[in-house]
Amino acid sequence: MAHNRQFLSLAQARAPFFVGVDVGGTNIKVGVVDDDGSPLSWLSIATEVERGPDDGVKRMAGAIERAVQDAGLAKKDIARVGLGTPGTMDVAQGILLTPGNLPGWWNFPIKQALADACGLPVTFANDARSAAYGEFWAGSGRVLHSMVLFTLGTGVGGGIIIGDLLVTGEHSAGSELGHLIIDHNDDARMCSCGQRGHIEAYASASAVVKRTEEALEAGRASSLKKRIDSGEELTGLMIDEEAERGDELAMEIILETARYLGIGITSAMHAVDPNGVVIGGAMTFGEHESKIGRAFLERVKQEVRERALPTLADLTTIDFAKLGGDAGFIGAAGLARRDYMQETKG
Amino acid sequence: MAHNRQFLSLAQARAPFFVGVDVGGTNIKVGVVDDDGSPLSWLSIATEVERGPDDGVKRMAGAIERAVQDAGLAKKDIARVGLGTPGTMDVAQGILLTPGNLPGWWNFPIKQALADACGLPVTFANDARSAAYGEFWAGSGRVLHSMVLFTLGTGVGGGIIIGDLLVTGEHSAGSELGHLIIDHNDDARMCSCGQRGHIEAYASASAVVKRTEEALEAGRASSLKKRIDSGEELTGLMIDEEAERGDELAMEIILETARYLGIGITSAMHAVDPNGVVIGGAMTFGEHESKIGRAFLERVKQEVRERALPTLADLTTIDFAKLGGDAGFIGAAGLARRDYMQETKG
Repeated sequence: MAHNRQFLSLAQARAPFFVGVDVGGTNIKVGVVDDDGSPLSWLSIATEVERGPDDGVKRMAGAIERAVQDAGLAKKDIARVGLGTPGTMDVAQGILLTPGNLPGWWNFPIKQALADACGLPVTFANDARSAAYGEFWAGSGRVLHSMVLFTLGTGVGGGIIIGDLLVTGEHSAGSELGHLIIDHNDDARMCSCGQRGHIEAYASASAVVKRTEEALEAGRASSLKKRIDSGEELTGLMIDEEAERGDELAMEIILETARYLGIGITSAMHAVDPNGVVIGGAMTFGEHESKIGRAFLERVKQEVRERALPTLADLTTIDFAKLGGDAGFIGAAGLARRDYMQETKG
Repeated sequence: MAHNRQFLSLAQARAPFFVGVDVGGTNIKVGVVDDDGSPLSWLSIATEVERGPDDGVKRMAGAIERAVQDAGLAKKDIARVGLGTPGTMDVAQGILLTPGNLPGWWNFPIKQALADACGLPVTFANDARSAAYGEFWAGSGRVLHSMVLFTLGTGVGGGIIIGDLLVTGEHSAGSELGHLIIDHNDDARMCSCGQRGHIEAYASASAVVKRTEEALEAGRASSLKKRIDSGEELTGLMIDEEAERGDELAMEIILETARYLGIGITSAMHAVDPNGVVIGGAMTFGEHESKIGRAFLERVKQEVRERALPTLADLTTIDFAKLGGDAGFIGAAGLARRDYMQETKG
């Protein structure tokens, strides 16, 4: 167990309350959120995938109990639980299919298992879609009627929200914006999904590392080389750090990544035409606070101006996400709230 | 005035009735449609753009009256009128902005003008979105919960429908699938909108002609050359005809077009994940009936299999549109019906 930080006091919070569970390959985050999207408590446990899904669900239920206690609440105060997991999955059936991050958890009816284990109704969603909904409900998208989210991490995730609709698709593959095609050519880069030309093959953390390795192998000079030669592993963070220190190749790789992202954003804008686009995930290069983050965002916007239908770039906001790593559990809780509102309406 | 064909007798038809108006750069189609999407009458008048929008709207109102008479109905039997026009436009304000096909009709409040001229409430939509809704309501998409339409014509149009939602976007640029980017490179083809790499620059009728001209200029042998040399204009139809006669270049161009379309369809599938994709428009190479049409569709499907997330291609139907040139006015009428249902509900 890591972290356990109080965000909002119970006196300030607004009932009803919801729990969000964000399952990743390494950690599971569990948090209690009020009716307004503010977290009252959260904690993180190790996923320990190798212990299997039954054990995992049991530990999730334990973490939910602790998070509820930490918030000063009892289980009866929780209206519903939201559960976000990596795909592939069958959202309607509540089943994990073959999630690459969760070996051994395949074809597991996780939604029902968690509902049984914690004794609360559960809403099930894809993790990227949960994060998108979190930003829409309580983060950068709070003022927007419609929003597109791109998350840059190990892969490239996405979320499309139009008013009340979170685009999940008919086969749980809606909003898979990491798999928008940006290169039709036969020699386009190979995506982790096994198909060619997807933006994930250009703009994910692993793609950024691969493109950097290629440039180094081609003989490009860079301060990255010294760190790699001294035994460090090349990562997105290292590229960010060396760019901050003025390394030309690192900066070039980052701006090229922004350019690829701008292409994908433009396609998503032409499909959805949202009020705003939000960029989240672990690899957003320092975001607003840093010189690199600002340059990254500016390069994204430049590419959108150069590629989008005239006037559309001016009408559409593009900004970084606000909730960081909390977007997943906040959004899962928000989706639970949405289902709860739907049920209590009828 | 052209054509005036009776589709459905009044005795078979189901009230309420709606009128659809489909405005193009050359012709305006007006039809009366019953509650089930079956046309009772339709007629076509010349747009005569040069006579200006006020005159155009007056003639539309006249055509509506005639179509209603032809259907054996009176104006009081019509619940609402649907109006589809080419963009750019402001759907919410009911205004034509700068439609390239309608010079002299720019910044014209066409929705209110038609409502005043015909004395009926009017629903306003983009022409490609109207056609998509027509196929969804009464054509190839009739059995689908969600659908993506691509139309291949002078440009490449699109429509995304998810359940009750027709994706119009916040700035009337939603569903602009012709502007999905399929080539991120700086030397990508230039689209008619002035930006690079959009699928319209590869798969529209004008793009097909351009690609063929380039191949001929590069010295490719083809039976097309003889027809061009004898003074004929190179068109999509001519390429279709020569492909039917066994011309290798013509066939190659058609299959390459299918490949580009398959790339765009794949991106749309990853954004929306619909039940089905429908391909319409003037340039669909004979559709089902012809050898070329079947080869075209097969090549589209092959590209989707090679580019889409594993299993998704098998789960998503891809087929030609059914309503042909009637999709626009039927869909406009369908959108009018949707607004009417909404109003009478409340």
